Amino acid sequence: MAGKVAQRRAALREDLINIAQRRIAEDGLQALRARDLATEAGCALGAIYNVFGDLNDLVLAVNARTFHALGADVAAALAEAPQDPVDHLVVMAQAYHHFAAAHLHSWRALFDVERAPDTAAPDWYLHEMGQLFTYISDPLAVIFPARDPQDLALLTRALFSSVHGIVLLGLDGASAGVPSDDIDRMIALVLRQFAGRE
Amino acid sequence: MAGKVAQRRAALREDLINIAQRRIAEDGLQALRARDLATEAGCALGAIYNVFGDLNDLVLAVNARTFHALGADVAAALAEAPQDPVDHLVVMAQAYHHFAAAHLHSWRALFDVERAPDTAAPDWYLHEMGQLFTYISDPLAVIFPARDPQDLALLTRALFSSVHGIVLLGLDGASAGVPSDDIDRMIALVLRQFAGRE
Repeated sequence: MAGKVAQRRAALREDLINIAQRRIAEDGLQALRARDLATEAGCALGAIYNVFGDLNDLVLAVNARTFHALGADVAAALAEAPQDPVDHLVVMAQAYHHFAAAHLHSWRALFDVERAPDTAAPDWYLHEMGQLFTYISDPLAVIFPARDPQDLALLTRALFSSVHGIVLLGLDGASAGVPSDDIDRMIALVLRQFAGRE
Repeated sequence: MAGKVAQRRAALREDLINIAQRRIAEDGLQALRARDLATEAGCALGAIYNVFGDLNDLVLAVNARTFHALGADVAAALAEAPQDPVDHLVVMAQAYHHFAAAHLHSWRALFDVERAPDTAAPDWYLHEMGQLFTYISDPLAVIFPARDPQDLALLTRALFSSVHGIVLLGLDGASAGVPSDDIDRMIALVLRQFAGRE
């Protein structure tokens, strides 16, 4: 009997992640409601909280999938890129842009998930961020062999944040939106100038 | 009589902006409710919509003040900066960081104000953004005299977005937060490297 209960629980967990993933992708994190999820999953509202501590835990599970899909896209773009560290930075940053544009709501949810003030992100989240940072720090270490590790770590984070800012404001069509080709061009201009290659 | 009505209307408008400004600064845009504003202003809920088309119009009026305060801070920082275009970029970007950190909710409201999808920002908003961009494009034109105007315009926007991204993710203490000194150091590293000065 216990096995069946655990099985049903695991199946409901999977269902809820699938449903939340699709709803976030379609309508954005802001529109996600526990009541709607329960209705679509055919379970009681309380059953959600038997599986996830709260709605944010469920969102984090969706974000884990988004992080993995993003990492796969970046890896695929890298596989076809020339073997030059500056090209690698540009190709990865443009892959980041294209992923964000193609999965706007899911990508926004990575950054918009709410946490209590001064609560650190969960370890797996920081680990996923760290994985993405490795993609950046490896070519940076080749481009700047004389930089000390602390500077390289700051530069890595700063470059990720820079590209994130260019993509975020560029995709915000309502304020200062930028055509997609111009976003790619901005990324290439900044990164090549930064690396002393233009 | 008409004069008194107009006067009362103008006074209510000023009151509402003051109240919304303080509430956004203290609790953030997400917590702003028309009903609370009406209660504090001692007016009927409908009276707000006699003065502002909707709550977003009121938020834009608050944002106008925030833009002006930001511009004043940047100008004050520039007045004390060395006469070097790269130093100017660094000093302005760090002033942007310090303004954002000191007025976190008001600064976030500049970017979080909601607009209907595909609705352009109002002209005054784009004008205020344009003013900030001029602060950046002037030193860039000195640093890169050979760049054509189109590249300079893209670089200007890209650099603003980069600094915005560094500040935004750096101040997000819950995800990948960065100590304040490190944010300033990231800004200086990126901008000086970008300008070929480090």
